[in-house]
Amino acid sequence: MKIAVLGLGLIGGSLAQALHPGHEVVGTDPAAAVREQARAWGLAVADDVAGAVAGAELVVLAAPVPGNDDLLARVPAGCLVTDVGGVKLPIVRRWEALDPRPALVPGHPMTGAEQSGWAAARPDLFAGARWVLCPGRWASPEQWLELCEVVLGLGAVVVPADPAQHDVAAAAISHAPHAVAAALAAAAGSGQPAALARSLGARSFRDLTRVSASPPERTAEFCVANRTATAAALRDVIDRLGAAVQVLEQDDPAAFAEHLREGHDARAAYERAHDALVDDSLLLGQGDDWAVPLLALAQAGGVVVAVDRRAGGIRLDVRRPA
Amino acid sequence: MKIAVLGLGLIGGSLAQALHPGHEVVGTDPAAAVREQARAWGLAVADDVAGAVAGAELVVLAAPVPGNDDLLARVPAGCLVTDVGGVKLPIVRRWEALDPRPALVPGHPMTGAEQSGWAAARPDLFAGARWVLCPGRWASPEQWLELCEVVLGLGAVVVPADPAQHDVAAAAISHAPHAVAAALAAAAGSGQPAALARSLGARSFRDLTRVSASPPERTAEFCVANRTATAAALRDVIDRLGAAVQVLEQDDPAAFAEHLREGHDARAAYERAHDALVDDSLLLGQGDDWAVPLLALAQAGGVVVAVDRRAGGIRLDVRRPA
Repeated sequence: MKIAVLGLGLIGGSLAQALHPGHEVVGTDPAAAVREQARAWGLAVADDVAGAVAGAELVVLAAPVPGNDDLLARVPAGCLVTDVGGVKLPIVRRWEALDPRPALVPGHPMTGAEQSGWAAARPDLFAGARWVLCPGRWASPEQWLELCEVVLGLGAVVVPADPAQHDVAAAAISHAPHAVAAALAAAAGSGQPAALARSLGARSFRDLTRVSASPPERTAEFCVANRTATAAALRDVIDRLGAAVQVLEQDDPAAFAEHLREGHDARAAYERAHDALVDDSLLLGQGDDWAVPLLALAQAGGVVVAVDRRAGGIRLDVRRPA
Repeated sequence: MKIAVLGLGLIGGSLAQALHPGHEVVGTDPAAAVREQARAWGLAVADDVAGAVAGAELVVLAAPVPGNDDLLARVPAGCLVTDVGGVKLPIVRRWEALDPRPALVPGHPMTGAEQSGWAAARPDLFAGARWVLCPGRWASPEQWLELCEVVLGLGAVVVPADPAQHDVAAAAISHAPHAVAAALAAAAGSGQPAALARSLGARSFRDLTRVSASPPERTAEFCVANRTATAAALRDVIDRLGAAVQVLEQDDPAAFAEHLREGHDARAAYERAHDALVDDSLLLGQGDDWAVPLLALAQAGGVVVAVDRRAGGIRLDVRRPA
């Protein structure tokens, strides 16, 4: 497949490297130095977006979130396009405002790193990752399937989520937590004795603040693009911490343990949702409501793990929580 | 050295296993099943506290935090005792109320795991860890040094912190973060679409909520024992998250990036505090103010890495932030 990757940072660069062995990949990036690094790696690199998308069957928008919205308008109408941004409603809204427009499968690989840029890219970034590919009116079932097969080929599994539901879920598990990690790091670093606190910070502190090492500009882009859901998730966390302070002040370990139990149980449910999945399958429909069973699968926590093209229809092998 | 370890859970069990090769260790635990497991492992196990401490040169209190306070009163007055609890002021206060009393070096190894109990114990738990041993009027410099050498022998480095400062720092980097992790896990698990959120939660969510998998009773014990500092640290986090919501609603990525920068920079300072240390040394004094240079070292983020007993005095090899 001829694939154009627009933006060669951490995700776009990793994706270009991962797709390189099996596809005809052309990348580009606004930074000349990045284009040179990618060429030195062995990637075919165009000097601009027009050069990269010329003749492409699939275009991947891998710029920062606001950049992808602009790039979408520059993709030829006949193309199939996906993006890798952390927020899905803005690009859907942008697509709806275009005429003519390419076919769009809004996407979001749930992986990353604190580091950024081509230098941090690695072709195995997607192995084992969950990758959101939103099924819906923006593309045909066959086009969604095509993307699905590309993504499965990278060792990822596909979450066919609704864009609005994706954004609310991403706020809860990623965007708000990024702001929380920053608050934890800042609070520990500004209190007294700060140097002793830094000295004593061990694995739990390291893990809890790791994402605050990410570039603030990158974190800010997806948090602001998803600000309504992120603010709501943060208000929920604030309310829970306020309750924690109140219970703490009762000086009753049993009461505070009870307060902590909801989080403990939610974490256990999270682990089960990844460790205790059962195999199932569903047939990909072709009618107007083809996306409905896929969306229901994602909403229930399920994933697509394989595509089985056979006479009489297309079967998707899926896994869903028991 | 003849060492009694009172409590054979995660920390006490790991410590007994780690001390076993170089010392004469006797453990005990209130649970008969745990005593049996420890015996089966090869540890000498007494059936009760009196049996374990009989003839011990060093007693390690490794029960949960409130239990250690009670155990302290049961240690013979001639003994040297340390504890491994996450909060240091309560045991100091308990010591001050005793008469006669053993010599005390309040301690806290900065390591652990979500799992608990003897089954989770492992002798390498302390390798590379920072281990707080509070120098002060509760023991002589020679007794503090004796503990220091035991701890260094396990591959840990020693942080000679003040108990009150330890408790404030521990609230910022461990106790409040445990409550924050629980709030994040609970918020993500209770919103809609919860199953999709669980499905999409990847490495950042896993790391940010990991400690919420710890037994709530254990977390509650140290949070409540350190409730003043923990509540203050949580209020600081709440204020910062409130500010984050306000900045988010300005819909300005640059402003939100600026908001996130303090956490980003604090995390970078944390990494430097562990990665960029310089070698130094200090002589252990014997006068009433022997603890002063040690406390200053810890407050500045430094650690003791070796003890050099030589004619003319005792030199401590230390490392401190550049």
